[in-house]
Amino acid sequence: MAKRWFHCDIRVRYAETDQMGVVYHANYLNWFEWGRTEMVRELGMAYRDLEGRGLLLPVTRAELDFVKPARYDDMVRISTAVDEWTKVRIAFRYEVRRLPDAAGTALALAEGDTLAAPPPADRLAGELLVTGRTQHVWVNREFRPVRIDKEAPEFYRLLQRMEEA
Amino acid sequence: MAKRWFHCDIRVRYAETDQMGVVYHANYLNWFEWGRTEMVRELGMAYRDLEGRGLLLPVTRAELDFVKPARYDDMVRISTAVDEWTKVRIAFRYEVRRLPDAAGTALALAEGDTLAAPPPADRLAGELLVTGRTQHVWVNREFRPVRIDKEAPEFYRLLQRMEEA
Amino acid sequence: MAKRWFHCDIRVRYAETDQMGVVYHANYLNWFEWGRTEMVRELGMAYRDLEGRGLLLPVTRAELDFVKPARYDDMVRISTAVDEWTKVRIAFRYEVRRLPDAAGTALALAEGDTLAAPPPADRLAGELLVTGRTQHVWVNREFRPVRIDKEAPEFYRLLQRMEEA
Amino acid sequence: MAKRWFHCDIRVRYAETDQMGVVYHANYLNWFEWGRTEMVRELGMAYRDLEGRGLLLPVTRAELDFVKPARYDDMVRISTAVDEWTKVRIAFRYEVRRLPDAAGTALALAEGDTLAAPPPADRLAGELLVTGRTQHVWVNREFRPVRIDKEAPEFYRLLQRMEEA
Repeated sequence: MAKRWFHCDIRVRYAETDQMGVVYHANYLNWFEWGRTEMVRELGMAYRDLEGRGLLLPVTRAELDFVKPARYDDMVRISTAVDEWTKVRIAFRYEVRRLPDAAGTALALAEGDTLAAPPPADRLAGELLVTGRTQHVWVNREFRPVRIDKEAPEFYRLLQRMEEA
Repeated sequence: MAKRWFHCDIRVRYAETDQMGVVYHANYLNWFEWGRTEMVRELGMAYRDLEGRGLLLPVTRAELDFVKPARYDDMVRISTAVDEWTKVRIAFRYEVRRLPDAAGTALALAEGDTLAAPPPADRLAGELLVTGRTQHVWVNREFRPVRIDKEAPEFYRLLQRMEEA
Repeated sequence: MAKRWFHCDIRVRYAETDQMGVVYHANYLNWFEWGRTEMVRELGMAYRDLEGRGLLLPVTRAELDFVKPARYDDMVRISTAVDEWTKVRIAFRYEVRRLPDAAGTALALAEGDTLAAPPPADRLAGELLVTGRTQHVWVNREFRPVRIDKEAPEFYRLLQRMEEA
Repeated sequence: MAKRWFHCDIRVRYAETDQMGVVYHANYLNWFEWGRTEMVRELGMAYRDLEGRGLLLPVTRAELDFVKPARYDDMVRISTAVDEWTKVRIAFRYEVRRLPDAAGTALALAEGDTLAAPPPADRLAGELLVTGRTQHVWVNREFRPVRIDKEAPEFYRLLQRMEEA
């Protein structure tokens, strides 16, 4: 079964840069979180609703490999996939890529220039910047481990369905 | 001449919350910056390109009024307008509003429920959360004041045109 | 009655800079919060304990004036004072100053050089960078206003005592 | 040769928490950076001065293992050690521990209670929260690899001396 990738695009904010002139490295962990949130939404639920019923998903391990730096105002695509999962744990993989960017550069284009179309919204595309992996455990508000099939059976079914697809 | 508002929508990230369960107040300054960036882009330039030629626009004063807190995963609309400007200074106004949100709640809808359509992308709409104002001065890389009509005449014309519209 | 200032010193972190090479302006709101926390501690309580019993102190308004930028690794002094307060509200004033810094420059000193002693820990001292003011209202976990003399009478007395001093 | 650990203590800021009520996980990367900065200072240089002459030290890989969460106002000790290094690369190890905390709890102490003394400033001490490792490469402002023995021979000697100690 091929891993299914979920994609979301963001534009780099000024506040995310540091004095090296690139994105401060800790922000990629924020982006990974963003990727997880949007992935869960695409699966058919809001992560917010899972938390609303007392299910938390803290990170127990994170790994990041930094290939090239993202810069202010870059369009980047965060691609997220479930790497492995059980009833008590889940791990995700991430790839962050810089997209070819047309926006905002209109005035700089000379006559006859053409803009590359951005890649379709459903692909691993662009220049690879960072890869990563995070591991998580499902816990309740008291940070005690819980079983996702018991506490959120409909999310459990969404994960199963994703795998079968 | 009515003030012209520019709008951009973002979804609140987990990293932007604090232990009160709401968005940490300093993040609204990041969102204001985001509003400025997108406004300049809609005017027809990339703020990045202004900086690329050595023009910086540091904040000299900021005011924020907090009406209601934004929460994780809220869709918020940041509305930005130029409040006043000269050849050496510029001030912006902001309004942050929570948009009615349909996404991700599909599973929670009962038969027959309908989702409110999000407001058109060009309006001050939704529940008012925060208002603010920032003042800026144009400087070069050495933080010395410069005149925008000299250093970036095409951006100066974009501002003039915005005002005449 | 003269305002009583409380002081705490921090060193600027790399993550707090942006690509202008200075501290990103939103961070001063974090530092103001730091100033409040340390002030409450010096008064004789932990702000954490106030929150632990369900008392929150969200910001309702903030103003910042940016005079000069702080830079990475600068030692800065955050000076905090209560500006005015009632049983339901409180406002603080802040001054952020850059301290003369000796640390870490040892190798750069030539023979015979001497290092200026840092100013005493209890003074408004150094180069003024930013001033500010925040307003707050006491609320409970449901964000409903509460009276501090009812909900935290011992903190109320600490405020009274501070004023009489 | 035993690894030499360098220690610095910080207090957790409100802005570092998230709505789980604990420190947002990306902040540990900021703290690791803080540990590196203070370690370099203790070795006898300011990392700021290395950057001042055009030497940057971007992160190429990071790993974090999260054992227990830090909370607002906790005193934590960041312990940093050089894991391995060559003339072009360097890797660090980190341990973050929660220190027993006396401050600010005075009012909560009953008669006869005593406060545990904080551990000496030079030890791995307290409750283990997070461990980590980062890899870095020395580059110039154009992000091209450089040799530290060429570009900053006095820092190279400090590293050598540390190892011999």
